[in-house]
Amino acid sequence: MSSLLVVGSIALDTVKMPSGKVYKDIPGGSCTYFIHSASFFNPVRVVGVVGKDFPEKYVNGFKKCKANLDGLQITDGQTFRWHGTYHKDMNNRDTDALHFGVLGTFDPILPQSYRDSEFIFLACSQPELQMKVLDQVKGKPLAVCDTIEIYIKESRPALDKLIRRCQGMIVNDAEARLISGEDNLVKAATAIHKKYRLQFLVLKKGEHGGMAVTKDGVVPFPAYPLEKIADPTGAGDCFAGGFMATLAKAKKADAKTLRAAVANATAVASCCCEGVGLAALAKADAAQIRARAKAFITMTNLG
Amino acid sequence: MSSLLVVGSIALDTVKMPSGKVYKDIPGGSCTYFIHSASFFNPVRVVGVVGKDFPEKYVNGFKKCKANLDGLQITDGQTFRWHGTYHKDMNNRDTDALHFGVLGTFDPILPQSYRDSEFIFLACSQPELQMKVLDQVKGKPLAVCDTIEIYIKESRPALDKLIRRCQGMIVNDAEARLISGEDNLVKAATAIHKKYRLQFLVLKKGEHGGMAVTKDGVVPFPAYPLEKIADPTGAGDCFAGGFMATLAKAKKADAKTLRAAVANATAVASCCCEGVGLAALAKADAAQIRARAKAFITMTNLG
Repeated sequence: MSSLLVVGSIALDTVKMPSGKVYKDIPGGSCTYFIHSASFFNPVRVVGVVGKDFPEKYVNGFKKCKANLDGLQITDGQTFRWHGTYHKDMNNRDTDALHFGVLGTFDPILPQSYRDSEFIFLACSQPELQMKVLDQVKGKPLAVCDTIEIYIKESRPALDKLIRRCQGMIVNDAEARLISGEDNLVKAATAIHKKYRLQFLVLKKGEHGGMAVTKDGVVPFPAYPLEKIADPTGAGDCFAGGFMATLAKAKKADAKTLRAAVANATAVASCCCEGVGLAALAKADAAQIRARAKAFITMTNLG
Repeated sequence: MSSLLVVGSIALDTVKMPSGKVYKDIPGGSCTYFIHSASFFNPVRVVGVVGKDFPEKYVNGFKKCKANLDGLQITDGQTFRWHGTYHKDMNNRDTDALHFGVLGTFDPILPQSYRDSEFIFLACSQPELQMKVLDQVKGKPLAVCDTIEIYIKESRPALDKLIRRCQGMIVNDAEARLISGEDNLVKAATAIHKKYRLQFLVLKKGEHGGMAVTKDGVVPFPAYPLEKIADPTGAGDCFAGGFMATLAKAKKADAKTLRAAVANATAVASCCCEGVGLAALAKADAAQIRARAKAFITMTNLG
């Protein structure tokens, strides 16, 4: 085990399912999903912000994950809220509303005790804020970032600078295409890996799995086969949580560990999809997640 | 090695690429791609029909693949022709014209010497014709069929009967959804496997790989990573060719052989995509295809 830091959003999500059922103010945000998924492998140091309206039971959920909450800011104002509606096929969703609340003025300050963090995940945020995190860290951590369309389009110089300061990046297919300008996903992934001299890039394709790119080449992987997707919200952040926590636990990011990280990330992301919000993750234990990762390795082994 | 029979179309394709370049009357059709891809592993017995306009050099191409052409009918009339235009992303194409010619009255008669075939691939055709092939075979071959939308929609009773007579099926995602009525692809694949009591079902997803379903569960697999797709025409039939020829060569379809078949099928299908028409396949040799299959097994091994 080693020190794993996550900086990102903590939200209250209101999600409308294709059935019409609405889940109101359930815990959401990249940090939240990351904390829960990483906790199966390695506990997490958290930097995030919530308002005073954030229910204590959700904070207790973080504590149950053995998360270090020294960097959790609880400030006057409303917690960040996301309202979304899923389409029938669950691969598409509409964002109905975003209320930034306290996230709008979020300043990611690392407690002194976090500044030696060895593994860092910069969940999607303004690249300037993501860099501010790195500014506060001593030593040579392994830093990995995520981003979204708006920053690729509107904060490109800062984003470029950020990616160059990171050792790894985890993005989805649409983001990889936007960053690279390449339609072909293999080209997009390898181009980003090369341009920013990353140790690794992981390109996620949702239900189609994804690929990891390292200096040794491309590792394509399918998704864990699920017959039912209850709610894909947070699956990408769970993937990142399982991935980063595997590296942190192993204290390295060599080829073998990266492959194990893909398997663990896939296992925990698929578990996430089986329940609404955190429901399935909260029910699972580390042994079950490890068993799923092992099953995934076995079922995808063609040799 | 054992006897492997393919019954399907032999065509002259005219393909317009996104670049605007047009390839006129190049060899096409399911049989053609199947013959070339299977030949890396196991030679093929062919039942198909061409018109007298079919260039001898293409027949010589089949001979170079050591195909048995006793069942190739060369009749008065025009060879089946397909005209298609690829969109910019190469995952979509329009069929501009279909001229059935001699294929319109094709009667798949098996020479006596073919009637002991042990492995049979029924490429896409009217289910009645596919069944007529099975009627002529003695013994208990391992028969695998493909189909397309039109027969699922308009010949469903015959198609149902056909699938029940087959041991395996290879279809794409859209077809699996149509046959099963299930949106979720894992559900679709497992439902078809169960309903028709198949030994195996392979569901192909193009650039996203696919999954095989057997009694032991689901084997999800990604595609071989390609930075450039020159022409995806025939990739599905190449997959089938590599797959079936692996079973035929091994003379079995147990779990281990099916996984090897997925790897070989993926290797040969990806090779197909690297050239226009048969160009890349014609340049490759068995050692290269085997090396690619081995590389694919290694790159997808997460354990």
